Amino acid sequence: MARILFLVGPDYEDIELLYPLYRMQEEGHETTVAAPSHEPVKGKHGYTVKPDKAFEEVDPAEYHALILPGGRGPERIRNNEHVKRIVRHFFQQGKPVAAICHGPQILISAGVLRGRKLTSYPGIKDDVVNAGAEWLDQPVVVDKNLVTARIPPDIPAWMREFVKLLREAMQ
Amino acid sequence: MARILFLVGPDYEDIELLYPLYRMQEEGHETTVAAPSHEPVKGKHGYTVKPDKAFEEVDPAEYHALILPGGRGPERIRNNEHVKRIVRHFFQQGKPVAAICHGPQILISAGVLRGRKLTSYPGIKDDVVNAGAEWLDQPVVVDKNLVTARIPPDIPAWMREFVKLLREAMQ
Repeated sequence: MARILFLVGPDYEDIELLYPLYRMQEEGHETTVAAPSHEPVKGKHGYTVKPDKAFEEVDPAEYHALILPGGRGPERIRNNEHVKRIVRHFFQQGKPVAAICHGPQILISAGVLRGRKLTSYPGIKDDVVNAGAEWLDQPVVVDKNLVTARIPPDIPAWMREFVKLLREAMQ
Repeated sequence: MARILFLVGPDYEDIELLYPLYRMQEEGHETTVAAPSHEPVKGKHGYTVKPDKAFEEVDPAEYHALILPGGRGPERIRNNEHVKRIVRHFFQQGKPVAAICHGPQILISAGVLRGRKLTSYPGIKDDVVNAGAEWLDQPVVVDKNLVTARIPPDIPAWMREFVKLLREAMQ
Protein backbone atom coordinates (compact mmCIF):
# COMPACT_ATOMS: atom_id res chain seq x y z
CA MET A 1 0.00 0.00 0.00
CA ALA A 2 1.36 3.40 -1.02
CA ARG A 3 0.31 6.90 0.06
CA ILE A 4 -0.48 9.08 -2.96
CA LEU A 5 -0.71 12.88 -2.85
CA PHE A 6 -2.77 15.02 -5.28
CA LEU A 7 -2.36 18.82 -5.59
CA VAL A 8 -5.58 20.45 -6.72
CA GLY A 9 -6.75 23.99 -7.53
CA PRO A 10 -10.12 25.41 -8.65
CA ASP A 11 -11.29 24.50 -12.17
CA TYR A 12 -9.19 21.35 -12.44
CA GLU A 13 -10.04 19.07 -15.37
CA ASP A 14 -12.44 16.72 -13.58
CA ILE A 15 -11.50 13.44 -15.27
CA GLU A 16 -7.78 14.17 -14.81
CA LEU A 17 -8.33 14.21 -11.06
CA LEU A 18 -11.05 11.55 -10.76
CA TYR A 19 -9.46 8.90 -12.95
CA PRO A 20 -6.10 8.72 -11.15
CA LEU A 21 -7.80 9.23 -7.76
CA TYR A 22 -10.09 6.20 -8.24
CA ARG A 23 -7.33 4.28 -10.06
CA MET A 24 -4.97 4.58 -7.10
CA GLN A 25 -7.80 3.50 -4.77
CA GLU A 26 -8.48 0.55 -7.09
CA GLU A 27 -4.80 -0.40 -6.63
CA GLY A 28 -5.38 -0.40 -2.87
CA HIS A 29 -3.46 2.82 -2.19
CA GLU A 30 -4.36 5.61 0.24
CA THR A 31 -5.12 8.90 -1.51
CA THR A 32 -4.77 12.42 -0.08
CA VAL A 33 -6.11 15.48 -1.90
CA ALA A 34 -4.42 18.76 -0.94
CA ALA A 35 -5.78 22.17 -1.97
CA PRO A 36 -5.36 25.86 -1.08
CA SER A 37 -7.67 25.43 1.96
CA HIS A 38 -10.14 22.93 3.39
CA GLU A 39 -12.95 24.45 1.31
CA PRO A 40 -14.42 22.08 -1.33
CA VAL A 41 -12.86 22.61 -4.77
CA LYS A 42 -14.91 22.40 -7.95
CA GLY A 43 -13.69 21.11 -11.32
CA LYS A 44 -14.41 22.68 -14.72
CA HIS A 45 -17.24 20.18 -15.24
CA GLY A 46 -18.78 20.63 -11.80
CA TYR A 47 -17.50 17.63 -9.88
CA THR A 48 -16.48 18.70 -6.37
CA VAL A 49 -13.74 17.34 -4.14
CA LYS A 50 -13.39 17.84 -0.40
CA PRO A 51 -9.68 18.38 0.35
CA ASP A 52 -8.06 16.18 2.99
CA LYS A 53 -5.38 18.80 3.68
CA ALA A 54 -4.42 22.40 2.94
CA PHE A 55 -1.06 22.76 1.14
CA GLU A 56 0.58 24.30 4.20
CA GLU A 57 -0.26 21.19 6.27
CA VAL A 58 1.40 18.74 3.86
CA ASP A 59 4.60 16.97 4.87
CA PRO A 60 5.67 15.46 1.53
CA ALA A 61 7.94 12.94 3.26
CA GLU A 62 4.77 11.06 4.26
CA TYR A 63 3.90 10.22 0.64
CA HIS A 64 5.28 7.76 -1.90
CA ALA A 65 4.08 9.50 -5.07
CA LEU A 66 2.59 12.75 -6.41
CA ILE A 67 -0.12 13.31 -9.04
CA LEU A 68 -0.82 16.67 -10.73
CA PRO A 69 -4.12 16.86 -12.69
CA GLY A 70 -4.58 19.52 -15.37
CA GLY A 71 -7.27 21.98 -16.34
CA ARG A 72 -7.10 25.54 -15.09
CA GLY A 73 -6.20 24.42 -11.55
CA PRO A 74 -2.40 24.32 -12.00
CA GLU A 75 -2.19 28.03 -12.97
CA ARG A 76 -4.17 28.89 -9.84
CA ILE A 77 -1.77 27.12 -7.49
CA ARG A 78 1.65 27.24 -9.23
CA ASN A 79 2.82 30.35 -7.32
CA ASN A 80 1.98 28.89 -3.91
CA GLU A 81 5.21 28.46 -1.92
CA HIS A 82 4.00 25.28 -0.25
CA VAL A 83 3.18 23.76 -3.61
CA LYS A 84 6.76 24.45 -4.75
CA ARG A 85 8.18 23.02 -1.51
CA ILE A 86 6.10 19.85 -1.89
CA VAL A 87 6.95 19.29 -5.55
CA ARG A 88 10.71 19.80 -5.01
CA HIS A 89 10.73 17.07 -2.34
CA PHE A 90 9.44 14.46 -4.83
CA PHE A 91 12.10 15.40 -7.39
CA GLN A 92 14.92 15.58 -4.86
CA GLN A 93 13.99 12.10 -3.62
CA GLY A 94 13.26 10.67 -7.09
CA LYS A 95 9.77 9.57 -6.04
CA PRO A 96 7.18 8.88 -8.80
CA VAL A 97 5.39 11.96 -10.15
CA ALA A 98 2.54 11.95 -12.69
CA ALA A 99 1.40 15.13 -14.45
CA ILE A 100 -1.03 15.71 -17.32
CA CYS A 101 -2.29 18.58 -19.48
CA HIS A 102 -1.53 21.86 -17.63
CA GLY A 103 -0.12 19.98 -14.61
CA PRO A 104 3.48 20.66 -15.80
CA GLN A 105 2.90 24.41 -15.20
CA ILE A 106 3.45 23.52 -11.55
CA LEU A 107 6.71 21.76 -12.42
CA ILE A 108 7.91 24.83 -14.32
CA SER A 109 7.30 27.10 -11.32
CA ALA A 110 8.93 24.62 -8.94
CA GLY A 111 12.04 24.78 -11.13
CA VAL A 112 12.45 21.03 -11.54
CA LEU A 113 12.35 20.61 -15.35
CA ARG A 114 15.87 21.52 -16.51
CA GLY A 115 17.26 18.67 -18.64
CA ARG A 116 14.08 16.59 -18.38
CA LYS A 117 11.95 15.05 -21.13
CA LEU A 118 8.18 15.39 -20.92
CA THR A 119 4.92 16.16 -22.63
CA SER A 120 2.00 18.40 -21.65
CA TYR A 121 -1.01 20.16 -23.13
CA PRO A 122 0.38 21.45 -26.47
CA GLY A 123 -0.61 25.04 -25.60
CA ILE A 124 2.12 25.23 -22.93
CA LYS A 125 4.82 23.48 -24.98
CA ASP A 126 6.92 26.67 -25.33
CA ASP A 127 6.80 27.30 -21.57
CA VAL A 128 8.04 23.77 -20.95
CA VAL A 129 10.88 24.27 -23.44
CA ASN A 130 11.78 27.67 -21.94
CA ALA A 131 12.05 25.97 -18.54
CA GLY A 132 14.93 23.93 -19.94
CA ALA A 133 13.12 20.71 -20.87
CA GLU A 134 12.62 18.73 -24.07
CA TRP A 135 8.94 18.52 -25.13
CA LEU A 136 7.73 15.39 -26.91
CA ASP A 137 4.44 14.97 -28.76
CA GLN A 138 3.49 11.51 -27.43
CA PRO A 139 0.52 10.12 -25.44
CA VAL A 140 2.86 9.39 -22.55
CA VAL A 141 6.49 10.20 -21.75
CA VAL A 142 8.35 8.36 -19.00
CA ASP A 143 11.59 10.05 -17.89
CA LYS A 144 12.99 8.46 -14.73
CA ASN A 145 10.51 9.37 -11.94
CA LEU A 146 8.29 11.57 -14.14
CA VAL A 147 5.30 10.29 -16.17
CA THR A 148 3.51 12.92 -18.30
CA ALA A 149 0.62 13.02 -20.78
CA ARG A 150 -1.11 15.64 -22.95
CA ILE A 151 -4.91 15.35 -22.83
CA PRO A 152 -7.69 13.17 -21.38
CA PRO A 153 -7.60 10.52 -24.16
CA ASP A 154 -3.97 9.86 -23.11
CA ILE A 155 -5.14 8.84 -19.63
CA PRO A 156 -5.10 5.05 -20.30
CA ALA A 157 -1.46 5.14 -21.48
CA TRP A 158 -0.52 7.63 -18.74
CA MET A 159 -1.88 5.55 -15.88
CA ARG A 160 -0.66 2.25 -17.38
CA GLU A 161 2.91 3.58 -17.19
CA PHE A 162 2.45 5.26 -13.81
CA VAL A 163 0.99 2.13 -12.18
CA LYS A 164 3.98 0.16 -13.51
CA LEU A 165 6.50 2.73 -12.22
CA LEU A 166 4.81 2.89 -8.84
CA ARG A 167 4.79 -0.90 -8.46
CA GLU A 168 8.54 -0.95 -9.19
CA ALA A 169 9.19 1.89 -6.76
CA MET A 170 7.27 0.12 -3.98
CA GLN A 171 9.17 -3.17 -4.27
CA MET B 1 -7.39 -8.41 -25.77
CA ALA B 2 -11.13 -8.29 -25.20
CA ARG B 3 -13.81 -6.28 -27.01
CA ILE B 4 -15.89 -4.27 -24.54
CA LEU B 5 -19.29 -2.76 -25.34
CA PHE B 6 -20.78 0.32 -23.58
CA LEU B 7 -24.48 1.32 -23.90
CA VAL B 8 -24.93 5.06 -23.46
CA GLY B 9 -27.85 7.49 -23.44
CA PRO B 10 -28.02 11.29 -23.01
CA ASP B 11 -27.18 12.68 -19.56
CA TYR B 12 -25.11 9.70 -18.49
CA GLU B 13 -23.03 10.21 -15.33
CA ASP B 14 -19.76 11.27 -16.95
CA ILE B 15 -17.30 9.58 -14.61
CA GLU B 16 -19.29 6.31 -14.73
CA LEU B 17 -18.68 6.17 -18.47
CA LEU B 18 -15.18 7.69 -18.63
CA TYR B 19 -13.60 5.69 -15.82
CA PRO B 20 -14.48 2.22 -17.15
CA LEU B 21 -13.89 3.36 -20.76
CA TYR B 22 -10.33 4.50 -20.03
CA ARG B 23 -9.80 1.62 -17.58
CA MET B 24 -10.58 -0.97 -20.24
CA GLN B 25 -8.26 0.84 -22.66
CA GLU B 26 -5.58 0.84 -19.96
CA GLU B 27 -6.00 -2.96 -19.78
CA GLY B 28 -5.34 -3.08 -23.53
CA HIS B 29 -8.93 -3.85 -24.54
CA GLU B 30 -10.87 -2.48 -27.51
CA THR B 31 -13.84 -0.32 -26.48
CA THR B 32 -17.04 0.34 -28.46
CA VAL B 33 -19.58 2.95 -27.37
CA ALA B 34 -23.11 2.36 -28.68
CA ALA B 35 -25.86 5.00 -28.44
CA PRO B 36 -29.31 5.74 -29.93
CA SER B 37 -27.69 7.18 -33.08
CA HIS B 38 -24.30 8.34 -34.34
CA GLU B 39 -24.89 11.83 -32.91
CA PRO B 40 -22.51 12.81 -30.10
CA VAL B 41 -23.97 12.17 -26.64
CA LYS B 42 -23.41 14.53 -23.72
CA GLY B 43 -23.07 13.55 -20.08
CA LYS B 44 -24.66 15.36 -17.10
CA HIS B 45 -21.38 17.20 -16.51
CA GLY B 46 -20.81 18.15 -20.13
CA TYR B 47 -18.28 15.60 -21.32
CA THR B 48 -19.22 14.41 -24.83
CA VAL B 49 -18.71 11.02 -26.42
CA LYS B 50 -18.85 10.22 -30.14
CA PRO B 51 -20.64 6.86 -30.53
CA ASP B 52 -18.92 4.13 -32.51
CA LYS B 53 -22.24 2.45 -33.32
CA ALA B 54 -25.99 2.95 -33.13
CA PHE B 55 -27.78 0.32 -31.01
CA GLU B 56 -29.43 -1.21 -34.08
CA GLU B 57 -26.02 -1.88 -35.65
CA VAL B 58 -24.68 -3.84 -32.66
CA ASP B 59 -24.11 -7.59 -32.95
CA PRO B 60 -23.52 -8.49 -29.28
CA ALA B 61 -21.84 -11.78 -30.27
CA GLU B 62 -18.80 -9.70 -31.30
CA TYR B 63 -18.14 -8.54 -27.71
CA HIS B 64 -16.70 -10.21 -24.63
CA ALA B 65 -18.24 -7.96 -21.99
CA LEU B 66 -20.84 -5.22 -21.44
CA ILE B 67 -20.67 -2.07 -19.29
CA LEU B 68 -23.69 0.05 -18.31
CA PRO B 69 -22.89 3.50 -16.83
CA GLY B 70 -25.50 5.32 -14.73
CA GLY B 71 -26.88 8.84 -14.54
CA ARG B 72 -30.06 9.70 -16.39
CA GLY B 73 -28.95 7.86 -19.54
CA PRO B 74 -30.30 4.41 -18.62
CA GLU B 75 -33.91 5.66 -18.29
CA ARG B 76 -33.60 7.25 -21.74
CA ILE B 77 -32.58 3.99 -23.44
CA ARG B 78 -34.16 1.20 -21.36
CA ASN B 79 -37.22 0.88 -23.62
CA ASN B 80 -35.16 0.53 -26.81
CA GLU B 81 -35.74 -2.96 -28.26
CA HIS B 82 -32.16 -3.25 -29.49
CA VAL B 83 -30.86 -2.41 -26.03
CA LYS B 84 -32.95 -5.26 -24.61
CA ARG B 85 -31.77 -7.65 -27.35
CA ILE B 86 -28.14 -6.77 -26.69
CA VAL B 87 -28.39 -7.10 -22.90
CA ARG B 88 -30.17 -10.48 -23.06
CA HIS B 89 -27.34 -11.91 -25.17
CA PHE B 90 -24.77 -11.21 -22.45
CA PHE B 91 -26.92 -12.85 -19.80
CA GLN B 92 -27.84 -15.86 -21.95
CA GLN B 93 -24.13 -16.42 -22.67
CA GLY B 94 -22.98 -15.65 -19.12
CA LYS B 95 -20.53 -12.99 -20.37
CA PRO B 96 -19.27 -10.37 -17.87
CA VAL B 97 -21.60 -7.41 -17.29
CA ALA B 98 -20.83 -4.33 -15.15
CA ALA B 99 -23.55 -1.86 -14.14
CA ILE B 100 -23.53 1.09 -11.74
CA CYS B 101 -25.96 3.62 -10.28
CA HIS B 102 -29.05 3.74 -12.57
CA GLY B 103 -27.49 1.25 -15.03
CA PRO B 104 -29.58 -1.62 -13.55
CA GLN B 105 -32.75 0.12 -14.87
CA ILE B 106 -31.69 -1.35 -18.22
CA LEU B 107 -31.37 -4.80 -16.66
CA ILE B 108 -34.89 -4.49 -15.20
CA SER B 109 -36.39 -3.68 -18.60
CA ALA B 110 -34.42 -6.46 -20.30
CA GLY B 111 -35.99 -8.88 -17.80
CA VAL B 112 -32.74 -10.49 -16.68
CA LEU B 113 -32.77 -9.87 -12.92
CA ARG B 114 -35.07 -12.60 -11.51
CA GLY B 115 -33.21 -14.49 -8.76
CA ARG B 116 -30.08 -12.35 -9.05
CA LYS B 117 -28.20 -10.44 -6.32
CA LEU B 118 -27.10 -6.88 -7.05
CA THR B 119 -26.80 -3.31 -5.90
CA SER B 120 -27.67 0.00 -7.61
CA TYR B 121 -28.32 3.65 -6.85
CA PRO B 122 -30.44 3.41 -3.65
CA GLY B 123 -33.28 5.41 -5.24
CA ILE B 124 -34.15 2.49 -7.55
CA LYS B 125 -33.78 -0.23 -4.92
CA ASP B 126 -37.54 -0.99 -4.89
CA ASP B 127 -37.62 -1.33 -8.68
CA VAL B 128 -34.75 -3.81 -8.53
CA VAL B 129 -36.57 -5.82 -5.84
CA ASN B 130 -39.87 -5.73 -7.79
CA ALA B 131 -37.99 -7.16 -10.78
CA GLY B 132 -37.33 -10.29 -8.69
CA ALA B 133 -33.82 -9.58 -7.44
CA GLU B 134 -32.19 -9.27 -4.03
CA TRP B 135 -30.76 -5.75 -3.40
CA LEU B 136 -27.64 -5.42 -1.26
CA ASP B 137 -26.25 -2.20 0.23
CA GLN B 138 -22.56 -2.77 -0.57
CA PRO B 139 -19.94 -0.86 -2.62
CA VAL B 140 -19.78 -3.78 -5.04
CA VAL B 141 -21.79 -6.99 -5.52
CA VAL B 142 -20.45 -9.83 -7.66
CA ASP B 143 -23.08 -12.42 -8.65
CA LYS B 144 -21.77 -14.81 -11.29
CA ASN B 145 -21.31 -12.69 -14.47
CA LEU B 146 -22.80 -9.51 -12.97
CA VAL B 147 -20.76 -6.84 -11.13
CA THR B 148 -22.76 -3.91 -9.73
CA ALA B 149 -22.08 -0.77 -7.68
CA ARG B 150 -24.11 2.12 -6.24
CA ILE B 151 -22.43 5.49 -6.75
CA PRO B 152 -19.19 7.04 -8.12
CA PRO B 153 -17.14 6.53 -4.91
CA ASP B 154 -17.76 2.77 -5.40
CA ILE B 155 -15.95 2.88 -8.76
CA PRO B 156 -12.57 1.64 -7.44
CA ALA B 157 -14.13 -1.48 -5.86
CA TRP B 158 -16.45 -1.96 -8.86
CA MET B 159 -13.68 -1.93 -11.45
CA ARG B 160 -11.28 -3.95 -9.26
CA GLU B 161 -13.81 -6.79 -9.25
CA PHE B 162 -14.78 -6.39 -12.89
CA VAL B 163 -11.16 -6.43 -14.12
CA LYS B 164 -10.64 -9.64 -12.10
CA LEU B 165 -13.78 -11.29 -13.52
CA LEU B 166 -12.89 -10.26 -17.07
CA ARG B 167 -9.34 -11.63 -16.76
CA GLU B 168 -10.77 -14.97 -15.57
CA ALA B 169 -13.35 -15.01 -18.38
CA MET B 170 -10.66 -14.34 -21.02
CA GLN B 171 -8.36 -17.18 -19.92
